[in-house]
Amino acid sequence: MKAVELIRKKRDGSPLSKGEIRWLIEGYVGGEIPDYQISALLMAIKFQGMEDSETASLTEAMAHSGEMLDLSFIKGFPVDKHSTGGVGDKTTLVLVPLLAAFGLAVAKLSGRALGHTGGTIDKLESIPGFRPGLSKEEFLSLVKRFGLALADHGDDMVPADRLLYELRGVTATIDSLPLIVSSILSKKVAGGARGIIIDVKTGAGAFLPRIEDSRRLARSLVATGGRLGRKVAAMITDMSQPLGRMVGNALEVKEAISTLNGKGPGDLEELCCQLGAELILLSGEFLDRKQAVTALRGRLRDGTALAKFRQLIGNQGGDVNIIDTPSLLPRAANRIEVQATRSGRVAGLDALSIGRAANLLGAGRFTKEDEVDPAVGVELLCKVGEDVKGGKPVAILHINAEENAKQAMDLVRDAYKITEKGAAPPPLIRERIGCRE
Amino acid sequence: MKAVELIRKKRDGSPLSKGEIRWLIEGYVGGEIPDYQISALLMAIKFQGMEDSETASLTEAMAHSGEMLDLSFIKGFPVDKHSTGGVGDKTTLVLVPLLAAFGLAVAKLSGRALGHTGGTIDKLESIPGFRPGLSKEEFLSLVKRFGLALADHGDDMVPADRLLYELRGVTATIDSLPLIVSSILSKKVAGGARGIIIDVKTGAGAFLPRIEDSRRLARSLVATGGRLGRKVAAMITDMSQPLGRMVGNALEVKEAISTLNGKGPGDLEELCCQLGAELILLSGEFLDRKQAVTALRGRLRDGTALAKFRQLIGNQGGDVNIIDTPSLLPRAANRIEVQATRSGRVAGLDALSIGRAANLLGAGRFTKEDEVDPAVGVELLCKVGEDVKGGKPVAILHINAEENAKQAMDLVRDAYKITEKGAAPPPLIRERIGCRE
Repeated sequence: MKAVELIRKKRDGSPLSKGEIRWLIEGYVGGEIPDYQISALLMAIKFQGMEDSETASLTEAMAHSGEMLDLSFIKGFPVDKHSTGGVGDKTTLVLVPLLAAFGLAVAKLSGRALGHTGGTIDKLESIPGFRPGLSKEEFLSLVKRFGLALADHGDDMVPADRLLYELRGVTATIDSLPLIVSSILSKKVAGGARGIIIDVKTGAGAFLPRIEDSRRLARSLVATGGRLGRKVAAMITDMSQPLGRMVGNALEVKEAISTLNGKGPGDLEELCCQLGAELILLSGEFLDRKQAVTALRGRLRDGTALAKFRQLIGNQGGDVNIIDTPSLLPRAANRIEVQATRSGRVAGLDALSIGRAANLLGAGRFTKEDEVDPAVGVELLCKVGEDVKGGKPVAILHINAEENAKQAMDLVRDAYKITEKGAAPPPLIRERIGCRE
Repeated sequence: MKAVELIRKKRDGSPLSKGEIRWLIEGYVGGEIPDYQISALLMAIKFQGMEDSETASLTEAMAHSGEMLDLSFIKGFPVDKHSTGGVGDKTTLVLVPLLAAFGLAVAKLSGRALGHTGGTIDKLESIPGFRPGLSKEEFLSLVKRFGLALADHGDDMVPADRLLYELRGVTATIDSLPLIVSSILSKKVAGGARGIIIDVKTGAGAFLPRIEDSRRLARSLVATGGRLGRKVAAMITDMSQPLGRMVGNALEVKEAISTLNGKGPGDLEELCCQLGAELILLSGEFLDRKQAVTALRGRLRDGTALAKFRQLIGNQGGDVNIIDTPSLLPRAANRIEVQATRSGRVAGLDALSIGRAANLLGAGRFTKEDEVDPAVGVELLCKVGEDVKGGKPVAILHINAEENAKQAMDLVRDAYKITEKGAAPPPLIRERIGCRE
């Protein structure tokens, strides 16, 4: 096979075979096919798209490019969850212990923040002592013994995705549906999950802001997962305003703890229970969604979910005292209030602006090399549909450095659209695709 | 400026500005922009095309990427000719001395063979002692003193084209109109020509076999040249059968000598005089094509064109005795006849097959590193419209190695389509685009 012939084939609109795709991915990861041929191929894919069968072959080839986790020891059905990324999205922190409390084994691999959305691993690292870097053996052994573990993707898993993602970033080939789908699913497949729920965010703060794009992505994820023998379901959920009220690493851990204690913000609790219920249905444990949601809410109220979180932290070297004393989490030196520009009701709260503000304060990364500041972030006192009074605070910035504070403050103030009548809170779950009836 | 932003711009269908294109080419040649970004850009250009203004900017940026020839010392109008490549196309060998004999100064830079078509430099190198590698000073000094010189492109001219051409070859981005046009014209612009005739071949043996593609290319060359202040005209000429009767390096030099002596094959003489006449019209020397053609035919008959060729060879170290004694040119060890499969008349003679056969014998290159054998090739005894007799020879293979002889023989035999009635020879000049009235 010659790479240039396969590039030409794709360029001219013919589908690549499973063997051809595997050969390309193996050759790229093995260093035999150079970047400049793969980038031309990626651009051809951006223009010509891929058939479902090609996307599935690409996903599989990428998944097999490195180490694979074998979760067959898990009784029943290993499950996993993925979010396309949002502002204030600490769902994983809640969902992993919640599912474990329900009795499902959860072997969760997560990533770090890049861009305006946060990453689960960065959030967990705000807990003093917590170790997200586990060996494969440690990770599997924790899942076996305790039913849960949460680690970052090691370098030896899905190297094809790492290489391709980096190349896509510098060649304007990020926003190609089959490339997005294969990037997401290859990590899930390599992680050993059989049942997967994907939280596809939509709205200003989402990776794909337009609902049509979110829908296309959700459909392709479900179809591709099905071809690979995985049960995949997707929910398109609101990211026009941030999820919950806290944006920033330690702040979000704090909010996750409240939620695991049954005292979190309504939208966050609702989303966690809905995503979790879908996984319970996928795993075949319950047949009824309402029943599953009720069971999960019960685990948030009876302390078992929080106990699992405590176990998770303790198992991985973290200071479990932060659960009862959240003030042990890193705290910013200063708090600055952002005032409402007028009285009225919140009609909109732009998630993208809030994400950018948190990033400016140091909560996220602009480049892969940036260090995050665990303590900083934005605390939202008001959300869409709530009353505000001119001159009274609508948000609090948690700040360690002065340099971008003014700009962040302006972003947060402008993120609030306040009108006389305001607007009702946007529906949290917009659509379900591939979910059980 | 960031390369990824410009790739995205082109990908999304927006034209790039002159400054952006210059920045990209300078950055690429300077090593600041990596191959993998340029290959993604090339693929985006393949899909989105370029506006005329962009093609002109690209051509200009490429031309200026290295050394430029200053031909302003030439009285009147420096002219140049380019062919998109054909089988048996030795036009340049005839045209350069012919124009010089007419009184036009010709500073001609040429290339080597790649693929199934020959290269002028390879042909000239079959002349013992001939040196195509001249310094810029030598080259210009020969043009000044004698009115002609014929050299290969030095490494310091148009490096952008060399880099891009190589990258295009391995990324399936060869057949993009703006990339073809800029590759051709950048070398002409850097070579200092003001009037340029392009021989766009059409038919089986051409780079672009379909006449619609040849026409599009011709039009874009004329339009782009005009934007850069060059007078460019194009002729679409037949390459369904080979030009002349000789295919192979020394064989073609021999045929060029006959033609410069007024005794060449009709199609070759006609094409040289038509291309030359167009350049004479472009230069403003004559106003009437017929008059110009007659003048040129006169130079082939009165010995002045051949005298100029003798001068050209002598100036560049070649053995001028080959002109009177062509047997001094390299000769193949064996000659093998190819017989007609039946009696009748030639209805077709596939140029591509003849070119491939000559290549198999060693006349051309399959990769850039291959050495050509100057002596080998194919001599065509019959062409379209001529009578043949079953079992009598239609062609002679000039062979030095046995290994591919059988395959070459089959190719040549099968290239001849012989029928009862045959067909008339195809018209030599199919269309003129941008030519003087």
